Amino acid sequence: MAKIRVTVWNEGRHEKSSEAVKKVYPKGIHGQIAAALKKEADIEIVKTATLDEDEEHGLSEAVLAKTDVLTWWGHMAHGDVKDAIVDRVQKHVLEGMGLIVLHSGHYSKIFRRMMGTGCGLKWREAAEMERLWVVSPSHPIVEGLGQYIELPHTEMYGELFDIPQPDELIFISWFEGGDVFRSGCCWNRGAGKVFYFRPGHETYPIYYDKNVIKVLGNACRFLARPKKTAYSLAAPHVPVSLNPIPKKD
Amino acid sequence: MAKIRVTVWNEGRHEKSSEAVKKVYPKGIHGQIAAALKKEADIEIVKTATLDEDEEHGLSEAVLAKTDVLTWWGHMAHGDVKDAIVDRVQKHVLEGMGLIVLHSGHYSKIFRRMMGTGCGLKWREAAEMERLWVVSPSHPIVEGLGQYIELPHTEMYGELFDIPQPDELIFISWFEGGDVFRSGCCWNRGAGKVFYFRPGHETYPIYYDKNVIKVLGNACRFLARPKKTAYSLAAPHVPVSLNPIPKKD
Amino acid sequence: MAKIRVTVWNEGRHEKSSEAVKKVYPKGIHGQIAAALKKEADIEIVKTATLDEDEEHGLSEAVLAKTDVLTWWGHMAHGDVKDAIVDRVQKHVLEGMGLIVLHSGHYSKIFRRMMGTGCGLKWREAAEMERLWVVSPSHPIVEGLGQYIELPHTEMYGELFDIPQPDELIFISWFEGGDVFRSGCCWNRGAGKVFYFRPGHETYPIYYDKNVIKVLGNACRFLARPKKTAYSLAAPHVPVSLNPIPKKD
Amino acid sequence: MAKIRVTVWNEGRHEKSSEAVKKVYPKGIHGQIAAALKKEADIEIVKTATLDEDEEHGLSEAVLAKTDVLTWWGHMAHGDVKDAIVDRVQKHVLEGMGLIVLHSGHYSKIFRRMMGTGCGLKWREAAEMERLWVVSPSHPIVEGLGQYIELPHTEMYGELFDIPQPDELIFISWFEGGDVFRSGCCWNRGAGKVFYFRPGHETYPIYYDKNVIKVLGNACRFLARPKKTAYSLAAPHVPVSLNPIPKKD
Repeated sequence: MAKIRVTVWNEGRHEKSSEAVKKVYPKGIHGQIAAALKKEADIEIVKTATLDEDEEHGLSEAVLAKTDVLTWWGHMAHGDVKDAIVDRVQKHVLEGMGLIVLHSGHYSKIFRRMMGTGCGLKWREAAEMERLWVVSPSHPIVEGLGQYIELPHTEMYGELFDIPQPDELIFISWFEGGDVFRSGCCWNRGAGKVFYFRPGHETYPIYYDKNVIKVLGNACRFLARPKKTAYSLAAPHVPVSLNPIPKKD
Repeated sequence: MAKIRVTVWNEGRHEKSSEAVKKVYPKGIHGQIAAALKKEADIEIVKTATLDEDEEHGLSEAVLAKTDVLTWWGHMAHGDVKDAIVDRVQKHVLEGMGLIVLHSGHYSKIFRRMMGTGCGLKWREAAEMERLWVVSPSHPIVEGLGQYIELPHTEMYGELFDIPQPDELIFISWFEGGDVFRSGCCWNRGAGKVFYFRPGHETYPIYYDKNVIKVLGNACRFLARPKKTAYSLAAPHVPVSLNPIPKKD
Repeated sequence: MAKIRVTVWNEGRHEKSSEAVKKVYPKGIHGQIAAALKKEADIEIVKTATLDEDEEHGLSEAVLAKTDVLTWWGHMAHGDVKDAIVDRVQKHVLEGMGLIVLHSGHYSKIFRRMMGTGCGLKWREAAEMERLWVVSPSHPIVEGLGQYIELPHTEMYGELFDIPQPDELIFISWFEGGDVFRSGCCWNRGAGKVFYFRPGHETYPIYYDKNVIKVLGNACRFLARPKKTAYSLAAPHVPVSLNPIPKKD
Repeated sequence: MAKIRVTVWNEGRHEKSSEAVKKVYPKGIHGQIAAALKKEADIEIVKTATLDEDEEHGLSEAVLAKTDVLTWWGHMAHGDVKDAIVDRVQKHVLEGMGLIVLHSGHYSKIFRRMMGTGCGLKWREAAEMERLWVVSPSHPIVEGLGQYIELPHTEMYGELFDIPQPDELIFISWFEGGDVFRSGCCWNRGAGKVFYFRPGHETYPIYYDKNVIKVLGNACRFLARPKKTAYSLAAPHVPVSLNPIPKKD
């Protein structure tokens, strides 16, 4: 069976400017996510891509055309992502490519584009314990997990999370400091799917957690671009002639 | 990979009393559905089961325990299905077994139980042409279909269909006589899924149509009981002691 | 404008057998809820009704026919509610009557009937602080609230709550002990609506909290039986003759 | 009670260039919609606004600030709407303003912005009969309607309509030529709501139909900006300090 082709995108700016970040993620956040996913037997990494690697942020049409799932991490430079690349990623999602948006990617242009809302939230850096409760117990994304994932030290994200109500709500987080958050959310968009997954940060070593990685692998399987869809959404606005209605015999 | 274990249930009364039905379905509606699904490489038929075959309508605990997906066709004898068997089927769905409800099964005890609504609809037998439009173009249930399925002669079912709004609406039917119908609908219930699929009738040869069979096969794949879920729903009401909150380091 | 006609139902058994409960709710849980709602200018209380008051648990056809919203509190005697009364309440909901299910009512026959699932959950009596976060900021049910409701001492209810994903998720609770819960959930059923609202207990004085009462009043407004619906769901299964399609001019 | 303040927006280009359109809508499509809504006792028209009336297409910040519901009709000049105005309208919707998108407005920048999808569809001009079936029988938007609305001659819109699955599906259309369409759809976005309503055209006299107008009036009531929401979404991305958790007594 063909492997799921995953492209791992990372803004990659923190890694350049901060020793603390470099220490946690010496090969970049993208490097760690790609290395972890590569261990899954049914996943292959098309490439890692970063904001500054070339004029297209590493996301040429050719790359996206062979990508089944794109993961997105960004934080300090959302505004530097070119609108033309956002348009291109959106087009691929509508045609079936899966999009996994991670942590501070909630405020990226592409996530806001796919949602239609502001995508704001509350946040606090206090190294709080987080417990992500599973509320969709048989969803493919939680396969192999227990009732919750626990992360000892995290940046808190709190409600109100300004998103459309998810088609499927999968995780709700509890934070030590008194907040809750819809931490795992799926939406259908065109022939594709979007999954927002909260865990992650540039200095907490979240992407080394085996349950977080398990969710990412499961999500790649669940969001993988379908081989063929009943409709092409590439040319969605179609004038049609009268469908002949067969006459009764 | 283990095959999907499907049990095909049929009321089986029309076939006893009507020559017309026997002519279309000489081995019963269940016989035809089972024969068609058996041709799929990844599906095995646990058994066919009928209302009158034994005290448990062929649906013993042992049978359901090894069933990943149960298909349900009934029409003239919904009231003869024992409540204890309905309880048992519901329990298995909540624990993960898929349930495919076909055509006049909309009025079965088990479907009404899973929905919480009356599940009524309009109907008319006028051999109308039906076109089932796909409105969820990349859903696994429509894999391999075109933009619609066309059936030349069907019993009409029309709105209002008294169901909860589906979690995923997959087909909308157009009927020659001026009606529409939500013909393919998915709901999550506990760890399991329910799929209602409208096509079918005791005298129109609907279950010989290759696209209808394709949908049934796809639905078996989509609804198959997950291997393990994050929660057991068999004992859902659980007193718990205080979860220890790990202290900060 | 006609007032919203509310019937407040309470099992009423704890109040008979426990001095502690009598002390908190001297006129019964129903008495307190009715007294609080009666203060709203646009609400009238049809009656309070209890399990043991008569053969029909106080819920005759005549009472329900003039009820726009029914509130339901039960806990220790769910099994004593007659199936015929459950059938009757369900019929009225499908025809448009609002149903507000409170706290331990999650395990009542009528709530399980409307949901189709087991409706189990986790629970713990440890007088924990609860914070109910609003996640649907402009919903009529939260009108007049701030970002959350805080209750200093509550019985904890935790996920997994075995319900169908709500049509509208309105509150998510945070509990001191590390749990979260979908505490305010709306579902459409037929022409009616069901609202589950978690707060409440027989000994914590929850129904004296002004924000809890505000939510109950808002919910009565939001769930009130519509004057006339486009369909009658009383006779839902309807054979229809061919709709004439007007000929083109 | 304060009236609902409605602003009626129309591209207004067809009316300039086509005698046929001028004949059907001598005061513009906006003029007719505003005239019809003005007759409702609880609605006031803030203003009608058109693409070419000024630099801001008639939609200044001051106008939107006093608008509870904005209706949008556009067709031939979607690309001429300035992005800054689209940003402004989106901001107001997220803060609570209702947005009613009509007919060919499906392809407007603002609708695509709110949806995140391509919003394409099939279409055919063959003066077909359309029957809009109500599938949400007690929704406020269908108050006062029967089971369906019938329009004798319409432009056909057919599936696949490239939208996110609606939060509430209210109408499904049947067309003479064999197509169906999700013709009345509601989505929640931030503190606001979006309603797409299919009927309308520049030469068919759809906005003179009393049932179409009834739906528009109902929709204005349902989508009206709430007086106060539990959250301000104007500044959605908020760093917060640690919420103090009250200590147990």
